[in-house]
Amino acid sequence: MHPIRKGIFVVLVAILGCGPLQQSDPLPSWNDGPIKSSIMEFVATVTREGSEHYVPTAERIAVFDNDGTLWSEQPAYFQLLFALDRVRALAPEHPEWKERQPFKAALEGDLEAVAESGVKGILELVMATHAGDTSEEFQHVVREWLTNARHPRFKRPYTDLVFAPMQELLTYLRANGFTTYIVSGGGTDFLRTFSDEVYGVPPEQVIGSSIRTAFEMRDGVPVIVRLPQLEFINDKEGKPLAIQKHIGRRPVAAFGNSDGDLQMLQWTAAGEGERLMVLVHHTDRDREWAYDRQSHIGHLDKALDEATLKGWTIVDMKEDWNRVYSFAE
Amino acid sequence: MHPIRKGIFVVLVAILGCGPLQQSDPLPSWNDGPIKSSIMEFVATVTREGSEHYVPTAERIAVFDNDGTLWSEQPAYFQLLFALDRVRALAPEHPEWKERQPFKAALEGDLEAVAESGVKGILELVMATHAGDTSEEFQHVVREWLTNARHPRFKRPYTDLVFAPMQELLTYLRANGFTTYIVSGGGTDFLRTFSDEVYGVPPEQVIGSSIRTAFEMRDGVPVIVRLPQLEFINDKEGKPLAIQKHIGRRPVAAFGNSDGDLQMLQWTAAGEGERLMVLVHHTDRDREWAYDRQSHIGHLDKALDEATLKGWTIVDMKEDWNRVYSFAE
Repeated sequence: MHPIRKGIFVVLVAILGCGPLQQSDPLPSWNDGPIKSSIMEFVATVTREGSEHYVPTAERIAVFDNDGTLWSEQPAYFQLLFALDRVRALAPEHPEWKERQPFKAALEGDLEAVAESGVKGILELVMATHAGDTSEEFQHVVREWLTNARHPRFKRPYTDLVFAPMQELLTYLRANGFTTYIVSGGGTDFLRTFSDEVYGVPPEQVIGSSIRTAFEMRDGVPVIVRLPQLEFINDKEGKPLAIQKHIGRRPVAAFGNSDGDLQMLQWTAAGEGERLMVLVHHTDRDREWAYDRQSHIGHLDKALDEATLKGWTIVDMKEDWNRVYSFAE
Repeated sequence: MHPIRKGIFVVLVAILGCGPLQQSDPLPSWNDGPIKSSIMEFVATVTREGSEHYVPTAERIAVFDNDGTLWSEQPAYFQLLFALDRVRALAPEHPEWKERQPFKAALEGDLEAVAESGVKGILELVMATHAGDTSEEFQHVVREWLTNARHPRFKRPYTDLVFAPMQELLTYLRANGFTTYIVSGGGTDFLRTFSDEVYGVPPEQVIGSSIRTAFEMRDGVPVIVRLPQLEFINDKEGKPLAIQKHIGRRPVAAFGNSDGDLQMLQWTAAGEGERLMVLVHHTDRDREWAYDRQSHIGHLDKALDEATLKGWTIVDMKEDWNRVYSFAE
């Protein structure tokens, strides 16, 4: 082609976005089948201009639980494993922890007993080990842990245990004009240390649990200090309330994996027009884990019944994903 | 010009963004002088690629107080005037209000006594009159009021009393890659009913005070119900804490007008690199109002001293703005 004509062609392709790359599969880790189709048909429907189910870009809000939905959560929530490492590191300064649950169980490495203390006990542990620092200091501690700690089963950094199919899904939704939020029971500041790099979700789109903070002047310099008091648990009913408070728009798509996500999915489903409600069902003990109704962590019981009853999309990890982690090609 | 050449020229202008409109003044309601220059120089500095003070788009966070900064706040916060109208409308259902402050003062139309009850009293009044509804119902009530109510001095809808120079500034900053947040002592859900239309600020970029909410099932349909309990007052120390919680990035530019904004400005100023801290000083009793150290509403005392001491940008409304409202050309 004549160079000038070729230049114009390149400009036109860039403007019209009609290059051959558009034809490739945006979700290669998902097996072809009804689940993948239902997700892609939903996206096609709400983004087709002129369609009666068209949703303007500003309202394309997709919310994602994190633990068990975007990355693994076994043998325990990864933030809890971080907290246990912190308990051990900080124990010399806290002799009272030896007699007090769930700290006692944490120091004894009794993961089962820690898990039995429930979301509240776990968050108490997490928050108590996360306080005292400024926001900056805390993020530094978390980053160091994410770099150095290794998952007990896979012997890899925890951030390697994000689900490749879900990373593809986040990218695919954003490419279609969605804003993707993380709405997690995990701590906001913990999540923010890796959410941008790992998921492409910037700090302002992370909604999590929180401890109280205080604004203080230290030698004339303002700092935000983390206090050892729970402020908000972003679980169950808390999730739709936090979504309304933070975003102020009802999501059109919601992704979860446990009963803690049920109210978020109900809130999403009750909006007008097309909606997508997805549960990730952990069915793959070889490549990941298999658990649902009997599990302390990622307990999935009522939400599984309601999803079945209402025809929500249930991802069978073993059947629907041809790979789970990026490192396990 | 030959039609095809002209077409190519139009495309090139569109691509390169070098049309003659780029040369026009983005802040026509601001008089030329050191204040306008300091704002425009700041924007030029942080957006110039390769500059040592360059700030990437994702980190261009600008935060704006609302009452007294983006719109007027006299003779009382407009949300308070809304609340007073609601107190009168709801009074028959609340006989106890006749004996209890600040409700008593509200029913008697004693604005001075209401103002003396302080931010907390005012928010109590606001919140109590805003509860019981679902989020949707409440927004409907506010929208109706904004359509029908008239400001006592200007006999116009309250949303006509936004500052034209500040609207220009919001647009100018967004055109330069900034994300503009409202960080206000006003209620989040109140602000969201008009923030997008009036300021171009979408609901997810509104951070305000809040009352508690609850997630309930009503005939199988989930609703979010507003409870008559204060949850968070977004004023003074609360502002930087809310910014950190909601955005998770430190602003590079902050705009306020009262002591309630001081900590937000301090937090912004303490970041590294170039920062812009702006106070709007109400000096124009003819076109708007003149008040500062002695005023209950928009009390500006310590922040004025600190701004002077530290060389922050102080907008003299009378000197620096050639128009205040759009309707007063």
